[in-house]
Amino acid sequence: MSSSAEIISVGTELLLGNILNSNAQFIAQQLAQLGIPHYYQTVVGDNPDRLKHAIAIASERSQILIFTGGLGPTPDDLTTETIADFFDTPLIENSEVIADITQKFAQRGREMTDNNRKQALIPQGAAVLYNPVGSAPGMIWQPRSHLTILTFPGVPTEMIEMWRQTAVPYLKSQGWGSEIIVSRLLKFWGLAESSLAEKVSDFFELQNPTVAPYANFGEVKLRISAKAPSQEAANQIIAPIEEQLRQIGGLDCYGRDEDTIASVVGELLNVTQTTLSVAESCTGGGLGQMLTSVSGSSRYFWGGVISYDNSAKVALLGIDPETLAQHGAVSEVVAQQMAVGVRSRLNTTWGISITGIAGPEGGTETKPVGLVYIGLAGPDEQVTSFAHQFGARGREWVRHVSASSALDHLRRKLLSEPLINQ
Amino acid sequence: MSSSAEIISVGTELLLGNILNSNAQFIAQQLAQLGIPHYYQTVVGDNPDRLKHAIAIASERSQILIFTGGLGPTPDDLTTETIADFFDTPLIENSEVIADITQKFAQRGREMTDNNRKQALIPQGAAVLYNPVGSAPGMIWQPRSHLTILTFPGVPTEMIEMWRQTAVPYLKSQGWGSEIIVSRLLKFWGLAESSLAEKVSDFFELQNPTVAPYANFGEVKLRISAKAPSQEAANQIIAPIEEQLRQIGGLDCYGRDEDTIASVVGELLNVTQTTLSVAESCTGGGLGQMLTSVSGSSRYFWGGVISYDNSAKVALLGIDPETLAQHGAVSEVVAQQMAVGVRSRLNTTWGISITGIAGPEGGTETKPVGLVYIGLAGPDEQVTSFAHQFGARGREWVRHVSASSALDHLRRKLLSEPLINQ
Repeated sequence: MSSSAEIISVGTELLLGNILNSNAQFIAQQLAQLGIPHYYQTVVGDNPDRLKHAIAIASERSQILIFTGGLGPTPDDLTTETIADFFDTPLIENSEVIADITQKFAQRGREMTDNNRKQALIPQGAAVLYNPVGSAPGMIWQPRSHLTILTFPGVPTEMIEMWRQTAVPYLKSQGWGSEIIVSRLLKFWGLAESSLAEKVSDFFELQNPTVAPYANFGEVKLRISAKAPSQEAANQIIAPIEEQLRQIGGLDCYGRDEDTIASVVGELLNVTQTTLSVAESCTGGGLGQMLTSVSGSSRYFWGGVISYDNSAKVALLGIDPETLAQHGAVSEVVAQQMAVGVRSRLNTTWGISITGIAGPEGGTETKPVGLVYIGLAGPDEQVTSFAHQFGARGREWVRHVSASSALDHLRRKLLSEPLINQ
Repeated sequence: MSSSAEIISVGTELLLGNILNSNAQFIAQQLAQLGIPHYYQTVVGDNPDRLKHAIAIASERSQILIFTGGLGPTPDDLTTETIADFFDTPLIENSEVIADITQKFAQRGREMTDNNRKQALIPQGAAVLYNPVGSAPGMIWQPRSHLTILTFPGVPTEMIEMWRQTAVPYLKSQGWGSEIIVSRLLKFWGLAESSLAEKVSDFFELQNPTVAPYANFGEVKLRISAKAPSQEAANQIIAPIEEQLRQIGGLDCYGRDEDTIASVVGELLNVTQTTLSVAESCTGGGLGQMLTSVSGSSRYFWGGVISYDNSAKVALLGIDPETLAQHGAVSEVVAQQMAVGVRSRLNTTWGISITGIAGPEGGTETKPVGLVYIGLAGPDEQVTSFAHQFGARGREWVRHVSASSALDHLRRKLLSEPLINQ
């Protein structure tokens, strides 16, 4: 089959930026799972002429047109009538839809209003796509050969239910879903997207699976996508490529798919039966939050100290005020003392600390915004620290990358250690 | 001016549904604010032929084409070269961009790789749109009269900074922003969207300004949008409506626009010249992170304790182990002791605490997932606590709403107090 699908999202609220187009993302994921190629998405407002223009273009280049939005009872809901008009087809009131809407209104103790009748109008020859959740139904229609139209309401909960209950069975009955697309995401920390891309550039030429790089908030990812008749067959296509990419990535490749640095560190702490506490200055709790976003983290994460003000560093971590005065709070020695202090106070195997200048204020010539020290204390009084210059790239960026980097240092440390309780 | 803008989002990851198109929403909002009409959005993959097809269509119907994505260093980043190719214009290496990228890499202690040079290629005659955050610059180009092209990277943080720092001044210099749309967002905490919507339903009929409700993560918002020739005129349209809505919202209306509960609490702490510390169990640092996301929070936030494990509650907050054994860590009395403990250890005016069951595991018949106690300790040994049942709506939801609610309790307390240092 050489058909491809196009998503046409109808709604002025999208053009005003009032809402995110999460419907397009959901349908895109579903199309990928069904193996239906999908090359374009269009967003257009509640305007019949511009909607017709979008239909004209889409119906030339795509064979399955999926509309969301504009099926409701109000005057600016005009998707169905505009599609019918474009294909010069009269609208017919569907009596089953009238019965369905009447019953739904009765259930909620309300009477059907006249403008709800409008939702029962569908083009002659179209089939109704029932809406199990709301009142506005959609349709499946082949206005001409090699062109199928599906319409859905814009409310995400209704669209998703209708998609699952009615569109998926229909598309499968048309032979789709025999080839599926399976993706694996490899995740990296500690190298730039460009340098990873250079190392693995040969893989970008592959056709099945394909390999593509992404980067976001200091993290780099490689997506491996395979097309195959089954999940198992796709996995077999992915496995050798994944293995080669992991080899190339080495220690920088920290995990895959749903893994986060926090979840990977958590597994390593579980495996080594060790525990962790944290002392945070500029991240203000963000490192603890990252760790505790993992369900079950109470097995290895015991807690920590948010030593935002210097007084908290003294009162809760036992940092020497003279050290603070001499070296400043953002220094290698204070990072080390924080890590040692929290580790001994909470009696954990590991203690990690973060102290830095998140900005936008507080930077100096010698200690610019983005300068961050990470301390790592472990068994046998060992303590190290790491200096980073993350740059003045925004307060939240510096804080997020600081917390992730702190976890990454511990991850590398745990990987390099013989298992402590062996 | 009869020009209109079109957003063209380039990236196969959008067609696979891997990411949400938040860039399109941001730019749509910005276009509305500048009063630039915007009738279409297109999403297309990293494919030169289909991108050219999208450019052909967009350049016929729109006069300002705004591209996001495909400016990076990897081979599938081909927006710039495809645009140049479409308009039959050679690419020229821009020496200032080379210098800028080289310097950015040097700052981070990395060397520029060959594929980064690609990012310095722009079509002959185009101007560089500098990227203050990342390495990939964009461009502003008029390949022919009545057609302006702007390109931005796909990484949202970079796109947003470039938009604000370079695109907005450019668009204003071209005469845009003469009829502008100004929006004011009123923010509420502590009531349901439906109950607020019922109270203010009459306002939804207004034409200028318009009023519309939004809700997410426990927060309810009302957006007031006015269209007028100037910011001042728009403000005059908005002001009386805002005043009426604030009256109706009462104490539940905590702020507007960029305000967060954390920033509002911060202002109140500044005004009352009081200080705050926190003790967090199930939020694991999220409350501290929320507070310290506000630049300048070091003036009133001194730090706190992440007492995730019971041992941390004993060691760092002085909670009586017998109390823990008798009442459990998730209890009113422990919440109170945590708040009192952190307040006295850090010597702050206020101490707030959170202890609860975020789930998905750990719930029992009497203490179900979503049960959260918030403690609030203040001057003169006063201490109170609040029990919440946030429901089993997901670990991150419970944690986020718990931290926001804790801040909201302090906000209401601060508003009810006579100014402490008067």
